[in-house]
Amino acid sequence: MYPKSIQNLIEEFSKFPGIGPRQAARFVFHLLKNDSSNTDNLIQSLKNLHQNVITCQLCFRAAEADQKNKHICSICSSESRDPRFIAVVEKDADLVSLEKAKNYSGLYHVLGGTVSMLEPEAPQKFHLKELFLRIKNSPSNRAIKEIILALSPTPQGELSAQYIERVLRPLNVKISRLGRGLPTGADLEYADEATLKSAWEGRK
Amino acid sequence: MYPKSIQNLIEEFSKFPGIGPRQAARFVFHLLKNDSSNTDNLIQSLKNLHQNVITCQLCFRAAEADQKNKHICSICSSESRDPRFIAVVEKDADLVSLEKAKNYSGLYHVLGGTVSMLEPEAPQKFHLKELFLRIKNSPSNRAIKEIILALSPTPQGELSAQYIERVLRPLNVKISRLGRGLPTGADLEYADEATLKSAWEGRK
Amino acid sequence: MYPKSIQNLIEEFSKFPGIGPRQAARFVFHLLKNDSSNTDNLIQSLKNLHQNVITCQLCFRAAEADQKNKHICSICSSESRDPRFIAVVEKDADLVSLEKAKNYSGLYHVLGGTVSMLEPEAPQKFHLKELFLRIKNSPSNRAIKEIILALSPTPQGELSAQYIERVLRPLNVKISRLGRGLPTGADLEYADEATLKSAWEGRK
Amino acid sequence: MYPKSIQNLIEEFSKFPGIGPRQAARFVFHLLKNDSSNTDNLIQSLKNLHQNVITCQLCFRAAEADQKNKHICSICSSESRDPRFIAVVEKDADLVSLEKAKNYSGLYHVLGGTVSMLEPEAPQKFHLKELFLRIKNSPSNRAIKEIILALSPTPQGELSAQYIERVLRPLNVKISRLGRGLPTGADLEYADEATLKSAWEGRK
Repeated sequence: MYPKSIQNLIEEFSKFPGIGPRQAARFVFHLLKNDSSNTDNLIQSLKNLHQNVITCQLCFRAAEADQKNKHICSICSSESRDPRFIAVVEKDADLVSLEKAKNYSGLYHVLGGTVSMLEPEAPQKFHLKELFLRIKNSPSNRAIKEIILALSPTPQGELSAQYIERVLRPLNVKISRLGRGLPTGADLEYADEATLKSAWEGRK
Repeated sequence: MYPKSIQNLIEEFSKFPGIGPRQAARFVFHLLKNDSSNTDNLIQSLKNLHQNVITCQLCFRAAEADQKNKHICSICSSESRDPRFIAVVEKDADLVSLEKAKNYSGLYHVLGGTVSMLEPEAPQKFHLKELFLRIKNSPSNRAIKEIILALSPTPQGELSAQYIERVLRPLNVKISRLGRGLPTGADLEYADEATLKSAWEGRK
Repeated sequence: MYPKSIQNLIEEFSKFPGIGPRQAARFVFHLLKNDSSNTDNLIQSLKNLHQNVITCQLCFRAAEADQKNKHICSICSSESRDPRFIAVVEKDADLVSLEKAKNYSGLYHVLGGTVSMLEPEAPQKFHLKELFLRIKNSPSNRAIKEIILALSPTPQGELSAQYIERVLRPLNVKISRLGRGLPTGADLEYADEATLKSAWEGRK
Repeated sequence: MYPKSIQNLIEEFSKFPGIGPRQAARFVFHLLKNDSSNTDNLIQSLKNLHQNVITCQLCFRAAEADQKNKHICSICSSESRDPRFIAVVEKDADLVSLEKAKNYSGLYHVLGGTVSMLEPEAPQKFHLKELFLRIKNSPSNRAIKEIILALSPTPQGELSAQYIERVLRPLNVKISRLGRGLPTGADLEYADEATLKSAWEGRK
């Protein structure tokens, strides 16, 4: 219905997560209405993405490539982070959330997925084996003190945590999970029983 | 517009919290469509409400009046509850939530409100003075061991908790608050910083 | 969990359409918090409902019983309404909506239901037979000029309209349907094709 | 927080209408997870946009540039469309909706905006003057028979329609508006009075 060059771009934007053809069309007309230099900036940023972003070979987060470290991210190579702590997260966005909370100075490990009942093969797809080796091969002067499983308290997150604990057990490393309880803004009346139990036991 | 007897009832139901005239009309036609015996049951239950429900003079929850205890509720007079623990809640519904979680066997104190910045007089309206006296006058053989402030982690709940702590300080009683952390089903990516901090510190 | 007299009333309110136990509990505590005279007013209005409201034996709407007309509603017995026009609606609330629009002075017929593919017996449950007889038996000096099928343009409404047209065909009476088009506040971009077609054909 | 090349792209996507930084981040990781050839396709489509899309100098819609007609769109230059009818729409998306309804074979005029009480200067920004001249200068053998104001029945749309009618009055051309009424799926009970009035008057 739309002119071909518009329709093509609508189809590209419709591949974005959560975007249907109507919102995609709105994106296109937003670009058309603005100066073409805006679109040029977007094109440049898109070009930079695959050129400049690498996957850190230690923690598997997406990271900026730089001169010194072509394969290791700025967190993993930082002198000010404590390498004896590794927080295991599902995805980059979770790592960013934890960094914003600013009370952790250890390292990370991005799994890239969670265990699901329905996909028994999933664990092989995410970076659990690499976590195992990373802990096992850590030099004695920086031996791991704690692995924090920073996974969401959803059924999939719980299942993944249990799975990871089983896999890491032979390494005899301390494993912890994030605390459960009432979140900011919760209404006691609507809190589920598991959350209330955790909140009760964790009172202080 | 509706016949007078219908309109009157619509107006009564429109006084209910969250109910507008349209849903109120739906209630009325629901009653009209069903047998009048259903409405009779509703009328009987309404009559019983003010006749049978008392406010417990100890904990201020709404309770069923009975022969033995005309002023004290079944929880406060129960032999199986530990009177050395008092959980302070804002409203009856919060108490019911905690009871459902089934891991507490102490007593309760229903405040009947929270402190708000905008209503400096509010504390006088809710049952804080009675809490103070209840703790102060508790007999030595059942001296209070812990007051659990089971208030929602909202700005009003936090403000109320601080206020109550200040009021109870002279009594030298242990005061705790429900634990903060990630609730069931939370997504790490969307958790706010305060919740993440609590979850991090409360890891185990 | 709640005291018995509260729990009973929660269960009565939970029978209301769209009301779950939590909102029902909120209704009960709303009543408890207010003076018992409010509850008395509600009880009185409930008592009046089944005592004072009749079903009009001509149009089948819910109506106030009065001295003069014990079986016929105020619209059907009004001198100022034109008996040669009958608007057929599904339910009382639709009639009230049309009355509010204030541009119709004929009579009504409340079907009390719609035809559904899944319930082939439904037409026998609603007052279609009575509509047929009402038209057929109308005295010659007030012969019906138009039957307006004021049904919602939903699949069920459309199906009902077709069914009614078929049933009334032998009576040779003019039958019309409400006009389709763009409603107030519609956004052309989001209008469905059938609505746009009607809007286009109905332009003026 | 994110690596610079990711953060830059997040900022570009955050300029899109209705997109916040979180969804923008999801777009970026969607691109990162997929093969870079997908991003290349997106970049190519973006490049084509400003290169290939022109604004039709007759109807002001966004159109594909082609060899024959560098300034006139495929609808305006089509032999099969009737040039005596012009449907006036606010934006390209409205034109596409009407084309999908497939019951119009005339031409269009895209205003590019609506009149607002708050922006008295707005009419000068959109292509109303061009519409006036387009009608005035139409050759006698293809004189305009009807201008259809296909504007949304919102306050702004109504205001614009009135404004346009006033501007075009000296041209003595027939002006119509899209029909108002009940849209597909409407519930009579919830229809507003203006819509019900239109539906009533437009019954057939």
